Amino acid sequence: MASIDLNSDLGESFGPWPMGDDASMLGIVTSANIACGFHAGDPAGILTVLREAARRGVSVGAHIGYRDLVGFGRRNMDPSSAELVGDTIYQIGALQGLAKAAGTEVGYVKPHGALYNTIANDMRQADDVIAGIKAVDPSLILMALAGAPIVEQARAAGLTVVCEAFADRAYNADGSLVSRRLPGAVIHDAEVVATRMLRIVSEHRITAIDGTEIVLEAQSICIHGDTPSAVALARAVRDRLIASGVELKPFAGSIRDLANA
Amino acid sequence: MASIDLNSDLGESFGPWPMGDDASMLGIVTSANIACGFHAGDPAGILTVLREAARRGVSVGAHIGYRDLVGFGRRNMDPSSAELVGDTIYQIGALQGLAKAAGTEVGYVKPHGALYNTIANDMRQADDVIAGIKAVDPSLILMALAGAPIVEQARAAGLTVVCEAFADRAYNADGSLVSRRLPGAVIHDAEVVATRMLRIVSEHRITAIDGTEIVLEAQSICIHGDTPSAVALARAVRDRLIASGVELKPFAGSIRDLANA
Amino acid sequence: MASIDLNSDLGESFGPWPMGDDASMLGIVTSANIACGFHAGDPAGILTVLREAARRGVSVGAHIGYRDLVGFGRRNMDPSSAELVGDTIYQIGALQGLAKAAGTEVGYVKPHGALYNTIANDMRQADDVIAGIKAVDPSLILMALAGAPIVEQARAAGLTVVCEAFADRAYNADGSLVSRRLPGAVIHDAEVVATRMLRIVSEHRITAIDGTEIVLEAQSICIHGDTPSAVALARAVRDRLIASGVELKPFAGSIRDLANA
Amino acid sequence: MASIDLNSDLGESFGPWPMGDDASMLGIVTSANIACGFHAGDPAGILTVLREAARRGVSVGAHIGYRDLVGFGRRNMDPSSAELVGDTIYQIGALQGLAKAAGTEVGYVKPHGALYNTIANDMRQADDVIAGIKAVDPSLILMALAGAPIVEQARAAGLTVVCEAFADRAYNADGSLVSRRLPGAVIHDAEVVATRMLRIVSEHRITAIDGTEIVLEAQSICIHGDTPSAVALARAVRDRLIASGVELKPFAGSIRDLANA
Repeated sequence: MASIDLNSDLGESFGPWPMGDDASMLGIVTSANIACGFHAGDPAGILTVLREAARRGVSVGAHIGYRDLVGFGRRNMDPSSAELVGDTIYQIGALQGLAKAAGTEVGYVKPHGALYNTIANDMRQADDVIAGIKAVDPSLILMALAGAPIVEQARAAGLTVVCEAFADRAYNADGSLVSRRLPGAVIHDAEVVATRMLRIVSEHRITAIDGTEIVLEAQSICIHGDTPSAVALARAVRDRLIASGVELKPFAGSIRDLANA
Repeated sequence: MASIDLNSDLGESFGPWPMGDDASMLGIVTSANIACGFHAGDPAGILTVLREAARRGVSVGAHIGYRDLVGFGRRNMDPSSAELVGDTIYQIGALQGLAKAAGTEVGYVKPHGALYNTIANDMRQADDVIAGIKAVDPSLILMALAGAPIVEQARAAGLTVVCEAFADRAYNADGSLVSRRLPGAVIHDAEVVATRMLRIVSEHRITAIDGTEIVLEAQSICIHGDTPSAVALARAVRDRLIASGVELKPFAGSIRDLANA
Repeated sequence: MASIDLNSDLGESFGPWPMGDDASMLGIVTSANIACGFHAGDPAGILTVLREAARRGVSVGAHIGYRDLVGFGRRNMDPSSAELVGDTIYQIGALQGLAKAAGTEVGYVKPHGALYNTIANDMRQADDVIAGIKAVDPSLILMALAGAPIVEQARAAGLTVVCEAFADRAYNADGSLVSRRLPGAVIHDAEVVATRMLRIVSEHRITAIDGTEIVLEAQSICIHGDTPSAVALARAVRDRLIASGVELKPFAGSIRDLANA
Repeated sequence: MASIDLNSDLGESFGPWPMGDDASMLGIVTSANIACGFHAGDPAGILTVLREAARRGVSVGAHIGYRDLVGFGRRNMDPSSAELVGDTIYQIGALQGLAKAAGTEVGYVKPHGALYNTIANDMRQADDVIAGIKAVDPSLILMALAGAPIVEQARAAGLTVVCEAFADRAYNADGSLVSRRLPGAVIHDAEVVATRMLRIVSEHRITAIDGTEIVLEAQSICIHGDTPSAVALARAVRDRLIASGVELKPFAGSIRDLANA
C-alpha cells in the first residue's frame, strides 16, 4: 500500500494574535512544523500545540526562520555564517526543550519562508543551516523542496533528507514552484489538489503549468491551514487520499523503521 | 580541604554591543551563568562563550530572565504562569542546544535580575520557574539566594538547590541583601571581599551591615566581571582564596560526585 | 442636544497577524486610539488605519503602552522615570509622524492596558506619562478613567483631561471597574449597554454592581471591536444612541471649539 | 573662507549596552546622526544625546535603519514598499518627538548601514525612503553618498540632498568606497585623513586607491567615534581643519541661509 506524510506549519500564533486553526490541522496532518519563536510563535503557545501534537501522535519538526517577527520571516536577509549557525541551533534547542516538556521530541527541521527559499539554492546559507542541525543532533532529518540543490548538498553532508511537494501549488517545467505573483500559481479546487497528490504518491509525477510531465520524488506533502477554506481543502484532500487507499503516516517513523530493519 | 564554587554572569553581549570580559572571567570562575537571549545574549555570541567554557572546563548554567531586552531583565514583570513556564523551558532548551553544539551541557539554572529577586519570595512565580525546570530536566540544579524562601520551596518540589552568597554585597541582619541604593551596599576592597568569602567558606558566617553575625550556607559565591575593576577584584579574590588553601571547583561536579558515591 | 464621543482601540494588528475589524469600527466611533508599536501595531498597518480615519473624519489618539509586544502591554512593569518619559515621547512622536503622512493629526493620548491601569493610581508613573506628553505637545489631551486620581493629577500639571466610561463593564460602588475575573464584569446585552450609556450621557450616572447609584462624568465612552460580536454590539449601541437623539462627535473637536469660543 | 560640516553616528547605545563616546563626539562634530530605535538606540538614551546636542548647538539628523536590532541594521533586507515607507516615517516621527522634547529639531535624514548602501543604488527602496521623508516633511534634507545614483533620484523627487564623503575610507576610481574587506580600505593616520579632507574641502578632489584623481562634491564629511582611537583621530582631524582656516559648521544652517538669502 502506498503511503505519504502530510505536513503543515503550526504554532504560528504570537502573544495575543492567533494564526491558523492548529487544533483542526492536528487532526489532518501526520507531521507538524512548529514555529520556534523567530518568525512566529511564543513559548506558551508553542507548548500548547506540542502537547496536542503529542496527544494525537503527530510528528513534530522545528520550523526555523530568520529573526524577523514583523516580517514573519518572509523577507530575505543575509545573516553571517556565525549568526545563521547560532540561530539554527538556538531555535532547534528551544523547541527540543518545549517538546520534551510536552512529552514528545523534535524529529526533523523544516526551514520557513525566505530561509526555506534561500537555502534551496544558496549554498553558503544552506551550509550554515546544515552545520547548525548537525551540531545539535546529526540524526535530525531535514525537510527540503523536492528537486532543489540543497537536497544533495545536505545528503553529502551526512543528513537524512525528506523531500516535500506542495499540494496546492503549480510547478514550472524545471520543478520549481510558480511564483505566487503569477496567475494559476495556487490551486483552490480540492478535487484537483487531491488528484495531483495521488499522482505524486503513486506515480511520482506531476503535470507542470505548461503541460510538461515532471518527476517529483516526495515523501511528504505540504498543506496549509491558515484560513477556514484552507482547512476545509486540507480535510477534503486527506479524505480523498484515504478513500483511495493511501496510508497517511509520518515520514520520520517510516524512515526510522527502514533504518532499524 | 574546604572548597567553593565561583560563579559569574557571562554571555551578556548582544549583537554589536559587547558586555563584560568573558574571556578573562572564564579564567577565574568555576561556573558560568550564560544568558539565554531574553534579557541578553544572541545565539552566535552565546555559542562562542560556551565553546570557551567547554575548553576551560568551566561548568555552565542557564541564566534565564524576563523577556525584556531593553530593560536587561531588571524590571519587575508579572507574566502569567503559562508564559513564565513556557519562557523558562524555551530559554533552557535553547541553551541546551547551544551547549551541545559547543561540546558541553547545561548543569544548572540561575534566574537573572528581577526574576531572581522576585522568585526568591513570590511563591507563584517561583512555582512556575520550578515547574519549567522540572519539565525540561528534573536533574537540573537550581541556584538560588541562600536563605530565601525559594530554597525550601524548590527542594520540596524535588529539585536540587545550590545556595549562593554575594561576595561584594553587604547583608542585612535577616540575610537579605542591602539595597544597592543604600550606602555601603557594594564592597569594592578586594581584601575585605576575600576575607568575607573565606569566612563563608570556612565558618558559614558573614557579618551583616549592622554588625550582627549571620549564618550563611552557600555552595557558590557570585562575583561580577562587568568592568575592568570588577575583573581585577574577582582575580584578586580568587588568588586569595587559593592562597588560603580553598579549592575552587564547580558545585555541579561535587554534588554529582556525592550522588555517585 | 446631548452629545458624546465613542472611542475604540484600533491599529492593533502586527505584521502578519490581524486584530479587530478596524474598517468597521471606523464607521462606528468618533475617536480612534491608535497603537504606537510598543504593545501592538506596525508602521505600515498603523499608516493604513490612520489614512482611513482621516478619510472618515475620525479623531486620532496615541494609544501608548509598555514595551511588551508578546504580552500585548497587559503585564505590569516598572520602568524607570527616564524610560517611561522616553517611551511616552517616542510613541507619540512616531504616531505624529505617521498621522501627518496620513493627512491627520494626533489630538490626544490614551495609555493602554497595564499602563492605563497603573497610572490611574500610581502617581510616579502617572507623572512620567504626563511629563512625556507635555514635552512633546502640552496641548495634547489625556484620556483617563473617570474618577481615577490621575484625572486631577494631570489637570494640576496643566493637561486637559477627558474622562471616559466603559460601556460594557460593570462598576463597583467606588467607581472602579469590576475585575474581569468576577462574574458579571462584562455586559454583553446591547440593549443594557445602550441604556447604561444613555444614562451616562443624560444623567451622568450609572448603577454599580451592588445597586449603588454613582456619579460618572464622562466625555467619551470606550467600546470594543475585537470580535465580530463586539462590532455588532458597538453598532447596536451607536444606533440606539442616535435614535435617542444623542449626537456623536469627537471630544477633541468639542473641547477645541470651547477653547476657541 | 572654506567651510565644511562634520557628521557622526550617535545615540547608538541600547538599554544596558553603551556604544561610542557621544559626549566627546558632540564636542567635535557639527551634525549628529541620531539612531531612531530600529537598528540601535532606546528612547531614554536618545533623549539624553539630543539634549546634549541641543545644548552644544549641534545639528540633528534621523539615522534611520532596517528593523534589525541584533544585526545592527547591517544586514541586507528586502522590506516591501509599504513596510519601508512606514518604517521611514515612524522612525523620523519618533525622533522628531524626542527632538522637540529636547529643545531641538530634526533637520535631515541619513539612512544607516545596509539601508544606506542599498538605497545608494536600489531605486525601488530609494523611492520608498524618499516617499517616507516627503510624507513627514518635504523640507527635510537627505544626506547621501556623494556620486551615488540616489543623489539625483532624490533631487528629481524634490528633496534637498547633501552629499557626504568618508574621511577615513579609501575610494575606488569610480567614486565608490573600497570594500572594508580589502587591504587599505580604512585609513588610520590622522595626518593623512586630515590632508584628504582638506583637499575635499578646498579642491573637491580626492585620490583614489589606484592613484586616479576623482572629483568629489561633498558638503559633509563623516567621521567615526566608536572607539577611543577613533575619537582621537576625529579630534586631530578637526584641529587640523580649523588650523588650516576651514570653518566647521552644520550644512543644514548653511543651506537654509542660502535659501533665505
